[in-house]
Formats: sequence, structure tokens, C-alpha cells
Amino acid sequence: MKFCNRCGSTVSWQVPDGDNRPRHVCLECETVHYENPRIVAGCVPVWQHEQVLLCRRAIEPRLGYWTLPAGFMENGETLQQAAERETFEEACARVRDLQLYTLFDLPHINQVYMFFRAELADLDFAAGSESLEVRLFRQAEIPWPELAFPTVGRTLECFFADKQEQVFPIRNEALTPMVKSTP
Amino acid sequence: MKFCNRCGSTVSWQVPDGDNRPRHVCLECETVHYENPRIVAGCVPVWQHEQVLLCRRAIEPRLGYWTLPAGFMENGETLQQAAERETFEEACARVRDLQLYTLFDLPHINQVYMFFRAELADLDFAAGSESLEVRLFRQAEIPWPELAFPTVGRTLECFFADKQEQVFPIRNEALTPMVKSTP
Repeated sequence: MKFCNRCGSTVSWQVPDGDNRPRHVCLECETVHYENPRIVAGCVPVWQHEQVLLCRRAIEPRLGYWTLPAGFMENGETLQQAAERETFEEACARVRDLQLYTLFDLPHINQVYMFFRAELADLDFAAGSESLEVRLFRQAEIPWPELAFPTVGRTLECFFADKQEQVFPIRNEALTPMVKSTP
Repeated sequence: MKFCNRCGSTVSWQVPDGDNRPRHVCLECETVHYENPRIVAGCVPVWQHEQVLLCRRAIEPRLGYWTLPAGFMENGETLQQAAERETFEEACARVRDLQLYTLFDLPHINQVYMFFRAELADLDFAAGSESLEVRLFRQAEIPWPELAFPTVGRTLECFFADKQEQVFPIRNEALTPMVKSTP
């Protein structure tokens, strides 16, 4: 950030009066520009308690890798609406009975991920514009080394472990930076 | 938003290529400026399973009303760190054993509230700079009509109901706009 989005003047990186951490502050109109973590909301779309719907990414980052449908929550929507919308946009799939399941803190990239378990309403799904391919996977078929993000791997790991007991406690965990791998 | 914070040129409110909703887009450098919901993180600081620590607000909005310690999550921290920090800033109090408890969607103001139940570590608390007064309340003493926000009232309502059963399920609810009241 170099300029004030309110008046167009130059901003300075300094601790505002009464604050305790540096922010972008406009030297002209004195607006303080706060930056806060963003929420990524998504689903674990489950078919008949056994199969999970994954999307192969058509976009960077992690193009070609498999993910659960998820994306940035938008203004004006709820967490569940965001998760449903992303599932529809990426997998053209409708889900119901959403239950909050995993929350991951990713402080190194200023994101909080939240996944809902959900029932896939029908088999009428398809690749959305951000997906190359969308398909159902049984536990033994999950392409573990080809998953796009640690949040996706950890959520699927929890899901298949919890499925044995049929108890799905909500988890809040912090995830450390991803180790770089080459496709 | 009127100006691009990257190049200082005028922004336009339009649907970017490949997107499906309007954003602030820079006509000069083509930067798309996304705006997303913000997270408010806080605690229900509990003393000896019976009393809850509330803060009387020294700042607007809702100056003079009682609240649970909570505030905007900052970049670079986890949800729990944000809740602990806000509790320390507003009530000079230390908490431990944080457990995720309530999540509220407030789509009309683009916020998601998250409260953690937590054990108050000791009685060494005091009003922080954003509080007029900080004190412990038993259930019968909670100043219900003088609570600052519906998220606070709903969390306390759930807490005292769940305390009877000693089971505290995590709740995700959407809250509708607050009815205006005069002090």
C-alpha cells in the first residue's frame, strides 16, 4: 500500500495515536488503513457417507493439484453461504446439512480456513471454471501426495479417522508454512 | 474507496474480467481491490466455573455498555492469540485453556465473531484503556439490558444454559441487525 484509497495522498507506515502496532496512515486525511486476516470457507461434500468430492485446480496456486472446494468469504454472506457458494462455483455441486468441522489458523499468510462437512445433494456435479476435473473419492482412492494444501489434507485425514467412530468433533488448529514440493 | 492504494489513480466500481461481482478496480494499473469480512475474536473469561469477567466500554460504539473482551483479529496471529490479546488489552487479564465456543455471522456488517471459553488465570485484572470498569459477574448479576452487542448476550445466554449440563457444544449462528436502543 502506497496511497490512501480515500484521498489519494501518500501513506506512511507508522504507529497511529493510541495504537500499539504500525499501520498504513494517510499523512493528509489521517485515515488509518487496517489490514486483517481473510477467511477461506469450504466444504467436505460427502456422498452416501463414504465418498468425498474433490476438485483438480485449473488455476494457480497449485494448479493441477486436488482440493476440497473452498475460497475467500465475501462481504454480505455467512460462513455457510460462502462454503455453499464456493462448492457450487468450483464443483457445480449442491450441498445440504452443513456442519462446522475444521478451523485452521495460517498466521504466516493471514488466513483462517473453515471447512464444513456437508451432504452432497445429488450426483449432478461438474468442473466449474476454476477446476479441471471434479470427482468422488473413496478413502483408499484419495490422492494424498497430490493434494493442493495442508488444510485439505488435514481435513480429509480427520474426516476419515472420525468416520470410524461416527463422531466429528470441531477442531481448531494452527498450521505451519507448507514445505515446497514440485509436481 | 476512491483511489488505488497501489498507484494512486482513480478506481472504478465494476465487475472484473472472469469475476461475477463488482469490485473496486484501478483503471490505470488494473489492480482489483477485494474487500472481505473481518473476524472479531474474544473470550468468555470464567472464574471458578461460576463467574464471568465483563468490561464496560470506554469507547464507541456502545460506550458505557458491558461486553466480553473482544476485538478485530490482526494479521500474523491465530484466533486464540487474538482472543487472548484482546482479553489482556481490555481487561488486563490472563486466560488459559481456550476452547472455541460461539461463531456468529453478521453479514450486514461484514463481520464474523468468535468467542472462546477460557479459564481466568488469577484475579489480577483491571480496566484496560478501552474499558471504564472490569468486574466478575455471577449469572444472577449479569446486566442483560446493558450488554453492548447481541453476540455478547447470546454467548452468555448459551454459556449459562450449557453450564447446567456441563456440555458446551460449539455453535455457529447468523445474527440479524441489532435493534437500536437508547441508553
